[in-house]
Amino acid sequence: MNYNQIFDQAIDRLHSEGRYRVFIDILRNKGAFPNARCFHGHNGPKPVTVWCSNDYLAMGQHPKVIAAMEEALHDVGAGSGGTRNIGGNTHYHVDLENELADLHGKEAALLFTSGYVSNDATLSTLAKLLPGCVIFSDELNHASMIAGIRNSGCEKRVWRHNDVAHLEELLAAEDPETPKLIAFESVYSMDADIAPVHAICDLADKYNALTYIDEVHAVGMYGERGGGITERDEAAHRIDIIEGTLGKAFGVMGGYIAADRKIIDVIRSYAPGFIFTTSLSPVLVAGVLASVRHLKSSSAERDGQQAAAQRLKDLMRESGLPVMDSTTHIVPLMVGDPVKAKRISDILLAEYGVYVQPINFPTVPRGTERLRFTPGPAHSEEMMRELVAALVEIWDRLDMELREAA
Amino acid sequence: MNYNQIFDQAIDRLHSEGRYRVFIDILRNKGAFPNARCFHGHNGPKPVTVWCSNDYLAMGQHPKVIAAMEEALHDVGAGSGGTRNIGGNTHYHVDLENELADLHGKEAALLFTSGYVSNDATLSTLAKLLPGCVIFSDELNHASMIAGIRNSGCEKRVWRHNDVAHLEELLAAEDPETPKLIAFESVYSMDADIAPVHAICDLADKYNALTYIDEVHAVGMYGERGGGITERDEAAHRIDIIEGTLGKAFGVMGGYIAADRKIIDVIRSYAPGFIFTTSLSPVLVAGVLASVRHLKSSSAERDGQQAAAQRLKDLMRESGLPVMDSTTHIVPLMVGDPVKAKRISDILLAEYGVYVQPINFPTVPRGTERLRFTPGPAHSEEMMRELVAALVEIWDRLDMELREAA
Ligand SMILES: Cc1ncc(COP(=O)(O)O)c(C=O)c1O
Ligand SMILES: Cc1ncc(COP(=O)(O)O)c(C=O)c1O
Repeated sequence: MNYNQIFDQAIDRLHSEGRYRVFIDILRNKGAFPNARCFHGHNGPKPVTVWCSNDYLAMGQHPKVIAAMEEALHDVGAGSGGTRNIGGNTHYHVDLENELADLHGKEAALLFTSGYVSNDATLSTLAKLLPGCVIFSDELNHASMIAGIRNSGCEKRVWRHNDVAHLEELLAAEDPETPKLIAFESVYSMDADIAPVHAICDLADKYNALTYIDEVHAVGMYGERGGGITERDEAAHRIDIIEGTLGKAFGVMGGYIAADRKIIDVIRSYAPGFIFTTSLSPVLVAGVLASVRHLKSSSAERDGQQAAAQRLKDLMRESGLPVMDSTTHIVPLMVGDPVKAKRISDILLAEYGVYVQPINFPTVPRGTERLRFTPGPAHSEEMMRELVAALVEIWDRLDMELREAA
Repeated sequence: MNYNQIFDQAIDRLHSEGRYRVFIDILRNKGAFPNARCFHGHNGPKPVTVWCSNDYLAMGQHPKVIAAMEEALHDVGAGSGGTRNIGGNTHYHVDLENELADLHGKEAALLFTSGYVSNDATLSTLAKLLPGCVIFSDELNHASMIAGIRNSGCEKRVWRHNDVAHLEELLAAEDPETPKLIAFESVYSMDADIAPVHAICDLADKYNALTYIDEVHAVGMYGERGGGITERDEAAHRIDIIEGTLGKAFGVMGGYIAADRKIIDVIRSYAPGFIFTTSLSPVLVAGVLASVRHLKSSSAERDGQQAAAQRLKDLMRESGLPVMDSTTHIVPLMVGDPVKAKRISDILLAEYGVYVQPINFPTVPRGTERLRFTPGPAHSEEMMRELVAALVEIWDRLDMELREAA
C-alpha cells in the first residue's frame, strides 16, 4: 500500500486533462473595485481589473457595510467564540435572521457558515427526517446541493435541466404516499438561465412534494427588495425552503435558509452542520445586516448591474464573440476546451491586466469549458471596450472562429 | 403524507427528552470580555459574565487582531467575492496558509470556512481517493469527523476512547494491503482528556496507516508556539494531517489542515467542500494572521489560561462540586441529567448573571449531561469565587449531593 503513489496519480490525472488549478493571488482595492492588485508571477503587485467576482453589486466595499463591520469589530470583537447553542448566539445573528425571514416573506430564517453548508446541512437533514424520502434534483444543481442529497442517503431522481415534463414523469412514477422533495436553483450561474418556478410549484402541489430552491445567485439581485427570483415571480409563498448566500450579491460571507417556523426549528435542532460549528463572526453578520437592509430599499445597484451585463453581452455579440444565450446578469463566453480556456485567461492576465478565471470540469461538463464574466455597476464602458478588444485579438491569435458580426 | 406532522413529532421528541435548545442571545463587550450583555427574557440588555466561550485566550478582543481586521476591511473590503479558484484567493489567504504550515512544521496548509468543514471535506475526500480504505475512529470523535467519515462511504472501525490496545486489535484484523486512516482528536473538549499521540503513531507505523488528528481545542493553547499537543509532545512530524480551527483559541473563525504538499494539493483539487464555496473573508483571515503570529511568540495568554483553569478546578473541588477529572484547560462539572443541567444553567443566568450553557445529547452521551466552564486569562479570582458560591447554593437548593469537601 503506497499512499504517495495514489496521491501522485490523482494529481497527474488533473495535469493530463489540462485542469490542474492554479490560484491567482490578488488583493482587491476597496473603494476602487473592480481594480485589484495581482501577486501572481511578478515582482510585487501589479494592477488588474477583476471580471469574475461574485460580489455582483460591489456591496463588499459599500460604505454602509464597511461602517457596520467596523462598529461591530469595536463593539463585540473578532469572532463569536462558540456554536450558536454554546456562547455564539449574538444579537446580530438574531436580527439578521429576522431580516432575512422578512426579505422572503417567511416566518423564520437560519444562518450557516456558508451557502455550501446551508445546502449540504439542510438537504441532508430534512430528507433524513422523512422516512423513505425521494429527492428530485435538477441535473445542473450545484455541488453543495448534490453533496446534501448524497449525504442524506435518500433515493435521488435527476431530471433534465429545467425540463418540467421530465420532472412530472419522475414524480408520477412514485407512490403518492412517498415523501418527496424537489430541489432546484433559480438562477443557474454557469449557464445563466432561470428555472420555471411556478411550473415546478404546480407539480409540487399536484404530487404533494416539498420544494427547495437555491437562490444563491439571485438574492439581492432580483425582485423589488432583492428577494430573488421568487420575489420577482411572486412565488416565494409557494416554496417551502428558500436558500441563499451572504457572500455574493450581499458582498460578505455566510449562508441561510428561510422557511416556516417549524421547518427552521427542525433544521436548527437536528442538522449537525449547523449545531457543531462556531457561528458566523458577528463582524460578518453586522456587515450583511447593513447590506441586506440597503438592498431592500435601493434598486440602483441591481439596475446598474443589469445594464452593465446587457452592455457587455451586446458588445461581445457585435464583435462576433460566442457569448452564450443568457437571460440573467451573468455573461458566459463559450470556449469548449480546457487548455484553450486556460490559455486565454493566462494571456488576459499577463498581457492585458484582465482577471477572469477559466471555468472547467467539474464546475461545468467537459467540452463546455468557458470564461464567465460578471460585469457590475462599477465596470465602466471603457473597461468593457478594452476587454472586448483584447478578446478579439486573442481569438484571432489562437485561430479561433468569430461568429458573423451581428 | 403529512409533512407537518412528522416535523412536529421531531420537535416533540426533543421537548420530551428535556433537550430542546433555546439559544441565549448575547453581545460580548469588546475590551471587557468575559463581560457581555444578555438580551434573553429581559427588557433591554442585562450584564452577564460568560463562562462557556471557546475564545479561550480572549484573542477575539486582542488589539493586534482588531487592528489587523480593521486594516483589511479598509484596504480590500468585506468579503472575498469568490471561491478560492475564481476570484477569492487573496494574498492574506496565501500568507495565512504559509503561517499555519510553519506553525505545525509542515510543507503546506489549506484554509476552509470552518473547522467543521475542514474535517468533513478532508476526511470524506481523502478516504474516497484511497480504494477500499478503512477508517479507524475514536468513539468520542467530534460530529464533524463522524460526518466526514460517513460521507466518505468507507468502512469504519470505532475504537474505545483513547484505548490503544483496542485500536491495535482492530488494525491487526485488517489485510495489510488495505489502505488505513486513523482519525482522532488531541484534546477531547467535553471530557477534557488528551490522546496518547505517540502510541497511536507507533501503531500507524506498524500497520502502515495514515494519521489524522483534530487539534481544534489545542491549537494556540499547547506547545511553545501554540502548535498544539503535537508540538508539545514533539509528534507533529509523525502525523500526516493536522486539523485545526481559527474560531477558538485564535479567536476569529475558519478552519484548516496542515500536511505535506502532495496531500494538500490533493485535497485542494478534489474536495467539493473546499472548491465550491466562497472563501473566508479577507477580514477574518487578516485577524487570524495577527492572532497566530502573536501566539507563536507570546505564552502569556496560554499560561494565564492554564492558571485560571487550575484555580477554578481547585475551588470547585474544595467546595465538593463534582468537577470531572481533567488534564486540560477545560473544566467540566458533571450533572448527569438533562433537565437538571438546564435548570442550573437557567438559575445561573437569571439570578447570578452567569452564562454557562448546559451540554446535553447529542453533544455528550445521555446520562452524562454536564456544565462546561472555560475560564480564561480574563476571568478574575473574584469572578471564580462568586461562581463557585452560586453553584454551591444551587446544588443545595436542588438537593444535589456535594462530595466530601477536599
Ligand atoms: C448555486 C450555488 N449554490 C451554493 C453555492 C455556495 O455558496 P457559498 O459560496 O456561500 O458557500 C454556490 C457558490 O459558491 C453556488 O453557485
Ligand atoms: C473537536 C472539534 N472539532 C471540530 C470542531 C468544529 O470547528 P469549527 O467550530 O471551527 O467549525 C469543533 C467545535 O466546534 C470541535 O469541538
